[in-house]
Amino acid sequence: MIMEKGLSSVGVLPSKSSQVTAVKVVVKESETKQTQRGKRVGFVLVHAGAGYHSESKAKEYKHVCKRACQKAIEKLQAGALATDAVTAALIELEDSPFTNAGLGSNLNLLGEIECDASIMDGKSLNFGAVGALSGFSLAAFKRNKRKLELAEKVETDLIQLKKRRQSNEKVIDSGTLDTVGAVVVDQEGNVAAAVSSGGLALKHPGRVGQAALYGCGCWAENTGVHTPYSTAVSTSGCGEHLVRTILARECSCALQTEDAHQALLETMQNKFIGSPFLANEDGVLGGVIVLRSCRYSTEPESSQEKRTLLVEFLWSHTTESMCVGYMSAQDGKAKTHISRLPPGAVAGQSVAIEGGVCRLESPESRAADSSLHCKECE
Amino acid sequence: MIMEKGLSSVGVLPSKSSQVTAVKVVVKESETKQTQRGKRVGFVLVHAGAGYHSESKAKEYKHVCKRACQKAIEKLQAGALATDAVTAALIELEDSPFTNAGLGSNLNLLGEIECDASIMDGKSLNFGAVGALSGFSLAAFKRNKRKLELAEKVETDLIQLKKRRQSNEKVIDSGTLDTVGAVVVDQEGNVAAAVSSGGLALKHPGRVGQAALYGCGCWAENTGVHTPYSTAVSTSGCGEHLVRTILARECSCALQTEDAHQALLETMQNKFIGSPFLANEDGVLGGVIVLRSCRYSTEPESSQEKRTLLVEFLWSHTTESMCVGYMSAQDGKAKTHISRLPPGAVAGQSVAIEGGVCRLESPESRAADSSLHCKECE
Repeated sequence: MIMEKGLSSVGVLPSKSSQVTAVKVVVKESETKQTQRGKRVGFVLVHAGAGYHSESKAKEYKHVCKRACQKAIEKLQAGALATDAVTAALIELEDSPFTNAGLGSNLNLLGEIECDASIMDGKSLNFGAVGALSGFSLAAFKRNKRKLELAEKVETDLIQLKKRRQSNEKVIDSGTLDTVGAVVVDQEGNVAAAVSSGGLALKHPGRVGQAALYGCGCWAENTGVHTPYSTAVSTSGCGEHLVRTILARECSCALQTEDAHQALLETMQNKFIGSPFLANEDGVLGGVIVLRSCRYSTEPESSQEKRTLLVEFLWSHTTESMCVGYMSAQDGKAKTHISRLPPGAVAGQSVAIEGGVCRLESPESRAADSSLHCKECE
Repeated sequence: MIMEKGLSSVGVLPSKSSQVTAVKVVVKESETKQTQRGKRVGFVLVHAGAGYHSESKAKEYKHVCKRACQKAIEKLQAGALATDAVTAALIELEDSPFTNAGLGSNLNLLGEIECDASIMDGKSLNFGAVGALSGFSLAAFKRNKRKLELAEKVETDLIQLKKRRQSNEKVIDSGTLDTVGAVVVDQEGNVAAAVSSGGLALKHPGRVGQAALYGCGCWAENTGVHTPYSTAVSTSGCGEHLVRTILARECSCALQTEDAHQALLETMQNKFIGSPFLANEDGVLGGVIVLRSCRYSTEPESSQEKRTLLVEFLWSHTTESMCVGYMSAQDGKAKTHISRLPPGAVAGQSVAIEGGVCRLESPESRAADSSLHCKECE
């Protein structure tokens, strides 16, 4: 995996609203040591929620992101398609008691768990979703049974979490825990996205959020006649804000323009914080992970297989923080990061945005033409 | 109500897909007798489903559309806002045993009724929806109780319908009955849209269609900085097709261009029948009712109250037929119409589109400036 050089600057961009402070942070990374190279290429970006992640729990959040990345990459290395890989990442994220999804889901007003989740396949454009899925469903029952078995392994953590939840439910649930999601591109260039959420704490029974709704929680669309890039998006945060702005699809559309970073920043500023559909809101809370990819070659006659897959990935949030992880099939381990709004920025009114670029070269292209290699990687 | 003169022609427009036959039919109507003029202005357009409406039941479909229009107009004449008027229309449509909504809803695989419905207010941009709402909900229980009481009045019809449904459920439910909807503009120029559906016959319990989903079943958006027109849209047909294309919102966006008729036709052709999200479907089945309005004046200095409200309204469908009704607050009665694909057109591949224009003049503007009156109406 080769990371693009970037500016390490932090700058404030102009915005239509005087209350919006846009912070531009471009990750500068390069990877010169690679302990393992898989036979397949592919990339995964996951998040454990846009909300507030305390320093004391940073290790746990990062750890679950790391495991989720590894699960997805294992699938990709075994030749699985993007949808299978993104599912593997989601299951890992849901099985953590530290995320507001699956096992760790918030409780509704009746003290029950009701989950929302959806997945989209960029190749077929198929989409599947469940909303307010409770234990009355056989599928959910089986799933919960499996989770309970897994939970025994993390019993100590869970008991501690439940105690804290009972004593201080609102504080923990509104801030710490949130929706999870993942976006993947596989070796064939197919993209997939998924999202899963336990919903608002003490929500009304039957309430569904963005994770259950088409265009709002996740979006994946392979390159096509009108779409030069393949795009995958997963959103997190206040469901009502993400639904009203159909944010996942909005980001995907915006990412078809040349500058992905600028497109995402403008979307978060103008179509999310500045949306007329949220004009009456005091603050607009959410986060997104996005990736877009395209094949390119320095040789015009290169076959599809010989072309390098360029993957640009970004995360952006208006919440205090967002925990992300990412990994390519050619990496030995995942990178994790807790992104935070800069000092002085106001949650709900400011945007943080970070990301990077990754070039994925198929084994065939490496063998055929070493000139495609980046010098940093040699 | 003054209807714009239009071409009575039926023409075939070119299309990207050779399988798409676009039929342009512009209603030519004028109304010289008005039995009643309300003190308020406003307009309602309703439909009793895009699907198949037999000639033998035409009277019933038209009758329920007529009653729904009257209920909405009664509200508008009493000074109610668009959301109240659209709700009144929907309740009337739901209470009919001939529509697939409310009382007449299809049964799911377990033999239960599960309803989807949503409403959007163009002024506040607020949106509310319910999906797979069953008798376990207190609100639904109360609503059903009221409906049962009402049903006693139409008991004969209902018993007959149930007998037919039991003996031939698939044929009736897949063809005859469908989602209902309404769009309204009130005297202040606010728009509202609503949709209600009983869903697919023999659907899986918990399945929700477009009527429950943001952007898919209905859309309403008052004029704003980036929207020269107020628009309201309600969709009907195959829920999966309407969801994947987010058709209500797509139509609303398209209606911001100058030629409403052309914009809607192109949307139905390119964003619905020709959508890459439905590339694997044999036919794409749906229908929409839309209205858009703006204020205009022949005098540049006219106050808001003195300006005429121009309402353009259209319906379009790819199904065999669609039953619609419309009425203005200045009309004595509603007009109803069963729109059908022309002979030779293939359902799921062809588009029918019809509509008209209505100028609504406030009492103040009529008193102040009679030159705004249409000669046909004098």
